[in-house]
Amino acid sequence: MHGGATSSELGVYAYAAAQVKKTMEVTHYLGGENFLFWGGREGYQSLLNTDMERELNHLARFLEAAVAYKKKIGFIGTLLIEPKPQEPTKHQYDWDVATTSNFLRKYGLIDEFKLNVECNHATLSGHSCYHELETARISGLLGNIDANTGDPQIGWDTDQFMTDVAEATLVMLSVIKNGGLAPGGFNFDAKLRRESTDVEDLFIAHIGGMDTLARGLRNAAKLIEDGTLAELVHKRYASFDTEIGAQIEAGKADFEMLEKKVMEWGEPKVPSAKQELAEMIFQSAI
Amino acid sequence: MHGGATSSELGVYAYAAAQVKKTMEVTHYLGGENFLFWGGREGYQSLLNTDMERELNHLARFLEAAVAYKKKIGFIGTLLIEPKPQEPTKHQYDWDVATTSNFLRKYGLIDEFKLNVECNHATLSGHSCYHELETARISGLLGNIDANTGDPQIGWDTDQFMTDVAEATLVMLSVIKNGGLAPGGFNFDAKLRRESTDVEDLFIAHIGGMDTLARGLRNAAKLIEDGTLAELVHKRYASFDTEIGAQIEAGKADFEMLEKKVMEWGEPKVPSAKQELAEMIFQSAI
Amino acid sequence: MHGGATSSELGVYAYAAAQVKKTMEVTHYLGGENFLFWGGREGYQSLLNTDMERELNHLARFLEAAVAYKKKIGFIGTLLIEPKPQEPTKHQYDWDVATTSNFLRKYGLIDEFKLNVECNHATLSGHSCYHELETARISGLLGNIDANTGDPQIGWDTDQFMTDVAEATLVMLSVIKNGGLAPGGFNFDAKLRRESTDVEDLFIAHIGGMDTLARGLRNAAKLIEDGTLAELVHKRYASFDTEIGAQIEAGKADFEMLEKKVMEWGEPKVPSAKQELAEMIFQSAI
Amino acid sequence: MHGGATSSELGVYAYAAAQVKKTMEVTHYLGGENFLFWGGREGYQSLLNTDMERELNHLARFLEAAVAYKKKIGFIGTLLIEPKPQEPTKHQYDWDVATTSNFLRKYGLIDEFKLNVECNHATLSGHSCYHELETARISGLLGNIDANTGDPQIGWDTDQFMTDVAEATLVMLSVIKNGGLAPGGFNFDAKLRRESTDVEDLFIAHIGGMDTLARGLRNAAKLIEDGTLAELVHKRYASFDTEIGAQIEAGKADFEMLEKKVMEWGEPKVPSAKQELAEMIFQSAI
Repeated sequence: MHGGATSSELGVYAYAAAQVKKTMEVTHYLGGENFLFWGGREGYQSLLNTDMERELNHLARFLEAAVAYKKKIGFIGTLLIEPKPQEPTKHQYDWDVATTSNFLRKYGLIDEFKLNVECNHATLSGHSCYHELETARISGLLGNIDANTGDPQIGWDTDQFMTDVAEATLVMLSVIKNGGLAPGGFNFDAKLRRESTDVEDLFIAHIGGMDTLARGLRNAAKLIEDGTLAELVHKRYASFDTEIGAQIEAGKADFEMLEKKVMEWGEPKVPSAKQELAEMIFQSAI
Repeated sequence: MHGGATSSELGVYAYAAAQVKKTMEVTHYLGGENFLFWGGREGYQSLLNTDMERELNHLARFLEAAVAYKKKIGFIGTLLIEPKPQEPTKHQYDWDVATTSNFLRKYGLIDEFKLNVECNHATLSGHSCYHELETARISGLLGNIDANTGDPQIGWDTDQFMTDVAEATLVMLSVIKNGGLAPGGFNFDAKLRRESTDVEDLFIAHIGGMDTLARGLRNAAKLIEDGTLAELVHKRYASFDTEIGAQIEAGKADFEMLEKKVMEWGEPKVPSAKQELAEMIFQSAI
Repeated sequence: MHGGATSSELGVYAYAAAQVKKTMEVTHYLGGENFLFWGGREGYQSLLNTDMERELNHLARFLEAAVAYKKKIGFIGTLLIEPKPQEPTKHQYDWDVATTSNFLRKYGLIDEFKLNVECNHATLSGHSCYHELETARISGLLGNIDANTGDPQIGWDTDQFMTDVAEATLVMLSVIKNGGLAPGGFNFDAKLRRESTDVEDLFIAHIGGMDTLARGLRNAAKLIEDGTLAELVHKRYASFDTEIGAQIEAGKADFEMLEKKVMEWGEPKVPSAKQELAEMIFQSAI
Repeated sequence: MHGGATSSELGVYAYAAAQVKKTMEVTHYLGGENFLFWGGREGYQSLLNTDMERELNHLARFLEAAVAYKKKIGFIGTLLIEPKPQEPTKHQYDWDVATTSNFLRKYGLIDEFKLNVECNHATLSGHSCYHELETARISGLLGNIDANTGDPQIGWDTDQFMTDVAEATLVMLSVIKNGGLAPGGFNFDAKLRRESTDVEDLFIAHIGGMDTLARGLRNAAKLIEDGTLAELVHKRYASFDTEIGAQIEAGKADFEMLEKKVMEWGEPKVPSAKQELAEMIFQSAI
């Protein structure tokens, strides 16, 4: 049996289990506060040779066992999954925040994990980084941020240091709304460009990355203290702060009641969403 | 109050509720078997002027009210949501099958809806149509198919008639594995190219679309009857049909037991996934 | 004959010729300084039903006739082509600046036309707007700019007002290096978002667009006056300002001479391209 | 001086010249029929630290020197450039066939080079492989084909063996129309998937790749012998085979003459482009 098992998917599964067990023990011993299931292979290259249903079940069994072992050894750090859509595989099972959340909900693991959002992975999945952060935040899943970036016109992970202050401002808006990130934080999963061959470039890049985040934090604080943007958003939905709006939000407004109101009100006009104004307010803060 | 309400987001919500109520009544009266929440506006253009959390809550309240009204009037048809990533909005809340499933699970609606998968929407979201169909199928959510297609290199919805027999074969593999689609089916949400100006083109396109699906069904049946591809996939995971594999799949294999096995087995070799062979088998069938 | 001709590609060609003739006359009469061949249909939907070679020849004949008519009536304004990769067609023959330049060179029209670069079309073709502007500029083809923008993660033309100051700064760097744009200029081929329904939004959007370009111009001037970024770029290529570098640039350094130098010099080290530093300098100016 | 030169862009240029000189001599000695400037670094990572104009000039000087050396040593093989849009750089100067052609025309090198088209590079640049092949063919630039393929939904070069018979059929249509490829040919610049770990997979992949091209050639021959598709295309442009059409194609139809004809004919109807029919004819052949 053992020969067969070693050259098998089962053998890989077991080996990975032993590796995760060991690294979790080490993390616990060292007082680690987070444990990240760093990814990049958890998907398929082709559906033709893949039993996706079975693979997803195996992944869930694996993570359940990790949760069980964490509890057994008394490790209280946060377990993190890092969504990434593809590369090197055609499709990874933690494609983006929503896909990963769906998986966690389906298998009853939603309360056991948080997410590590990487801005470059966000853009690869067709979303802005801010979208992914907000999607995680509003479900209570924002655990950590890989503060590197990419080019939305490049189809692979470039892991560049973040230098775009506008993007950093949006990132920090999410972090502030989240009440911070602890016990997580920011991690530079970034590297120099291949052509940056001076030793000083390593310092320049790290200083630039930190300064960018700092400028982003200042800008985000300024935007929030100023309040104009929040007021614009608040006004857009103010009609839901009325009595009927509150009924809707409480799940007490059925179709029959709403139809009666519509008969009374007539066809609605759509209030302006003020996108151009919102963009101007944002740009004025950076 | 009513003047304010009519020029408000709340007014739009109520008006939409009245519209859905009426069309659901008509569907019920006519003996309809499905009720599709056809989409394309259920998202945002910019996060700067959007309260995504509140919008998602509103969407959930709306769908809950629809479910309640469906039950009240005794309509037993399937409620369907059609995932679409974007266009005309920057981001739609039913981006793809996984995102829509996540939403339905979060709000406890997962048992009340099925999905209408459109191949063109699949490719717009960065997935193959087969991926979206399989993702829906293995969660019991595959309800209906919009049998139109697009070009994976085009970034908007072209709604072309399907003429690619290889794609149709994959679509039909999902349908067969799903045990068919009833009470749903296939729908041509497709249109002629603007340059197809002859009356006969309308017939050619519909006949071509139907023939393509028919050829796809024949090919899928041939692949399944032949069994070679299924056997290749089955062999890949055969190690999970062993005693330990069964324990893993039953959730009874903890990390300590697996680590012991690994100590005994040593480092595993990865068995071949045979992708090139799988692709050859597939191409030989079409 | 005439019945056949009117329902034919030839009929369309002739009709378009008559239209362009008339509008060129009107432009001349009104003292117009530019004449733009605004595009969007000059391509194919499928290569299966298209004779691309013949279509390109027809397009060239058409533009040659336009040049001839321009000269005949004494119109001295600039003829402009606006590159756009696709939408509504699968492929447009003026895909991007390089593709359009290739066409103009092949048919001997390169001295008769300039280009109208639109930032949204640039991103659709997989390039940054700055890339397209620079590609046009260094070939002496930058004639006019459509100052609207899009989202690099959206696959169709959204024609938004530009509000991104960083992008506007890059645009203005090209314009300054080009010595301005006259007789062309900036054109807002932009529209409000569908959800911006207030009358004031029209003013906000235009003011925002103009302010963004003005801020971009200030930033670009600041960057150029400061000189740090230009110095960084200059140093990178300084070795080509040596005697041998000058020989290479003059086309007088053959492979045998260079090989001898290499034997003497040994394997080169690659000097740093200082990308992270360049990005920091740029961000500090905006 | 020499120390400076070795750590410089100039040093890299000279070193590359010496390398190309040597490999060209070896190719000549061995009786090689083609000499490919295999690419992947000939571009920029960021325009901020790049003098694109100077880099393009250097590239032209380099290729001119290569042409001169080729003639000097009497090597009569074809010089080839392989378009690739990006990876690892953000932008490569030989982005696609049209971009490369533009460069060769601008610098007077168009008669000295042909192109090596790779299908995976085609899809990365936003084009179908057939488009790139046809674009090269109608300009007399189709020299060689890298017969590997990728996934249009993947943003990097996967270099897979071609198994898609439909794609191979289109490739072979171009090759036949080109009168073959000699002295070039097909090259498998492809590799196994990482998960294909059996020795036999290497044979399966190569056999599959060859069989796919052979099936494509048979299908293309069948399509051409059948003639239906060519007839459909021919009919579409038949109006240009009339007397006036011939005048247009000969560059003798000026706007005034065409306007007179339009006055006589009235507004044209657009004849059908028959795309759906063309797609059905194509699919019936594979």
